[in-house]
Amino acid sequence: MTNSTNKRIIIFGGDGFCGWPTSLYLSRNGYDVTIVDNLSRRNIDNELECESLTYIRPIGERIRAWMEITGNSIDFINFDMAKEYDRLVEALKEIKPKAVVHFAEQRAAPYSMKSPKHKRYTVDNNISTTHNLLCAIVETGLDIHTVHLGTMGVYGYGTAGMEIPEGYLDVKVNDVTGGEKSIQIQYPVNPGSVYHMTKTLDALLFYYYNKNDDLRITDLHQGIVWGTNTDETVMDERLINRFDYDGDYGTVLNRFLMQAALGYPLTIHGTGEQTRAFIHIRNSVQCIKIAIENPPSKEGRVMIFNQATETHTLIDLAKKVSSITGAKMVFLKNPRKEDPKNTLKVMNKQFLELGLNPIKLSDGLLEEIISIAEKYKDRCDATKILCTSKWRSDIELDDNSNYLSR
Amino acid sequence: MTNSTNKRIIIFGGDGFCGWPTSLYLSRNGYDVTIVDNLSRRNIDNELECESLTYIRPIGERIRAWMEITGNSIDFINFDMAKEYDRLVEALKEIKPKAVVHFAEQRAAPYSMKSPKHKRYTVDNNISTTHNLLCAIVETGLDIHTVHLGTMGVYGYGTAGMEIPEGYLDVKVNDVTGGEKSIQIQYPVNPGSVYHMTKTLDALLFYYYNKNDDLRITDLHQGIVWGTNTDETVMDERLINRFDYDGDYGTVLNRFLMQAALGYPLTIHGTGEQTRAFIHIRNSVQCIKIAIENPPSKEGRVMIFNQATETHTLIDLAKKVSSITGAKMVFLKNPRKEDPKNTLKVMNKQFLELGLNPIKLSDGLLEEIISIAEKYKDRCDATKILCTSKWRSDIELDDNSNYLSR
Repeated sequence: MTNSTNKRIIIFGGDGFCGWPTSLYLSRNGYDVTIVDNLSRRNIDNELECESLTYIRPIGERIRAWMEITGNSIDFINFDMAKEYDRLVEALKEIKPKAVVHFAEQRAAPYSMKSPKHKRYTVDNNISTTHNLLCAIVETGLDIHTVHLGTMGVYGYGTAGMEIPEGYLDVKVNDVTGGEKSIQIQYPVNPGSVYHMTKTLDALLFYYYNKNDDLRITDLHQGIVWGTNTDETVMDERLINRFDYDGDYGTVLNRFLMQAALGYPLTIHGTGEQTRAFIHIRNSVQCIKIAIENPPSKEGRVMIFNQATETHTLIDLAKKVSSITGAKMVFLKNPRKEDPKNTLKVMNKQFLELGLNPIKLSDGLLEEIISIAEKYKDRCDATKILCTSKWRSDIELDDNSNYLSR
Repeated sequence: MTNSTNKRIIIFGGDGFCGWPTSLYLSRNGYDVTIVDNLSRRNIDNELECESLTYIRPIGERIRAWMEITGNSIDFINFDMAKEYDRLVEALKEIKPKAVVHFAEQRAAPYSMKSPKHKRYTVDNNISTTHNLLCAIVETGLDIHTVHLGTMGVYGYGTAGMEIPEGYLDVKVNDVTGGEKSIQIQYPVNPGSVYHMTKTLDALLFYYYNKNDDLRITDLHQGIVWGTNTDETVMDERLINRFDYDGDYGTVLNRFLMQAALGYPLTIHGTGEQTRAFIHIRNSVQCIKIAIENPPSKEGRVMIFNQATETHTLIDLAKKVSSITGAKMVFLKNPRKEDPKNTLKVMNKQFLELGLNPIKLSDGLLEEIISIAEKYKDRCDATKILCTSKWRSDIELDDNSNYLSR
């Protein structure tokens, strides 16, 4: 069996919100999946004193349930790839995967802004996991395709009135003769948090290791993922996926859903005219399979996909949730240093051409409200919903954890 | 005494090749200097089993000699700012420096390519020192100007026929209406080694912390530094600066000087038509003082200077050394993945306008040959001169440590 035809995949971070449903989806689609995870997301639950709204079983129980229901086995190895480099090299050499999917990063912007300790952890962990992986692949000499979960948040100039291309931008520059020439560059980045910054650092690591060592790398610039379950995670309650509603890990949509379920007003940061890109978790796992099955050529540059299917302003989102649930809306100060209003036009042709069929927010929102937020709301700790991370030193919180600005 | 008028400076990495003469130069010019260094460069000497050609005294002896000769005291604290974050915060809070100069990075490209361990050390050390520093400055709330030693090697597209601007590039892009608009972006990077890659990561850390926390930051994109001594380091033999000639830390010019002094041929990698930018160590320390004295405004973006005064091809350098010493030249395979030939035109108006007076290679080369390479050649271990780092997996070495290509 050669590398190019084998079906072995390692999912780094395969116990997390995106990693788990991806592991199941690939397992169901004929891949031989090994999960590597140090269970850091569960440890962060302990630190934050808050759990997923849905009840997440221990990883061993999850994997046994999957075997019981489908007959498919998933291997699991518990180690920290940021710190245990030798075990990482050993795992790659032993498994010889066709591709690896890299989710092993701290992925919450508010968490990355909580304190110096959280900033430093996010930078150390995310850069070390990515660099160790690339360095280890070179060391093994194996032809392993890396599929990385990046973020739409790396892009800057979203307000400059340009459509955001898939990673590379055509520009015209002056040459020494005074003439003008066209070149293509990596899209100039403009991260909005320490977390987003780490993803822009990742992109440079990818650029360099692709150029110097001919590594095959696909970087997926993902929008905000919404939705909880996939066709696989609904097969058994023990397989259910995370629904994070807390101020650090909950997305804006999950916050709205939780607030609505509890009869609270929806809290909108700033004017609500900030535009974000979105994708359903079902589409997200499909994108990863498509990316694995369409690797860049050995000589090719880093392949970049925009993994998002639609854009909405925050106020639009709130109105959609409000129209179904009757929830009220309140406006708070925005802790993030960003334009109060932006337009966002995202190119995503590549995935559509490769067969992705977008799930629309308008079609899936009701299911989230009924089968997740309403169903499990008794597990919610309402004191955890609001975000209390201070993005900047000139942000303060009032007694109700609402943002004030000096 | 307020931050903006005090003369206290911390030099991180103040025991190294650039850090030491900078510390003396600033001390002599009225600054109150504290050196923070973990002596990692001396430890790497131990690892590589090779020392500076000049004899470098222990840091305590260096500082005592400086006091004896000039009456100026320099403080020294030994800790690892990559790992001892709390001590870093404490030092900043206690000293309350007007500015910090950040040299605390592994600075040799060949060393960064020796093995996975060296790649990982370079990334871990360089990103952690930079990020810890920025994070700590934010934590203290002090208005501290960071002056960082970057490299000309971050720039890409040097062969695209453009003059390299000082950090920011004007480009034209298409907007959504089909029209064209002009924007200014950070110059697209194109690092040639893991070491150079870390400097491109630094630049993103600077960009983010400047944007989010209004930190004052100056990034100096330095060319290859040549020359050994400054007006201060020649005041006493105990103050002498490093001259590295080994295959990891020696620059191309130092290699040529050493080979000529020993009667060996000068080894040129590739065609020798690669162009590099240069600056004398005397000019380098002057640039740092100019940068400290011209901080960006609190609201301003990261200030970027090109710290280089002339450009030469490698073959030109070899010919200059050969014409003085009579040394022969030989051509070896180039381990680096780069164009065999490039033009390099570097803008450096900013430093010239602020009063920098360039020292020309043609005026200083003879002094290096006589007062360094010839004078100390008995301390040279000739087996250490050639570079043996493998940039890529398709590079091999022959029995004489010359590069072969498969």
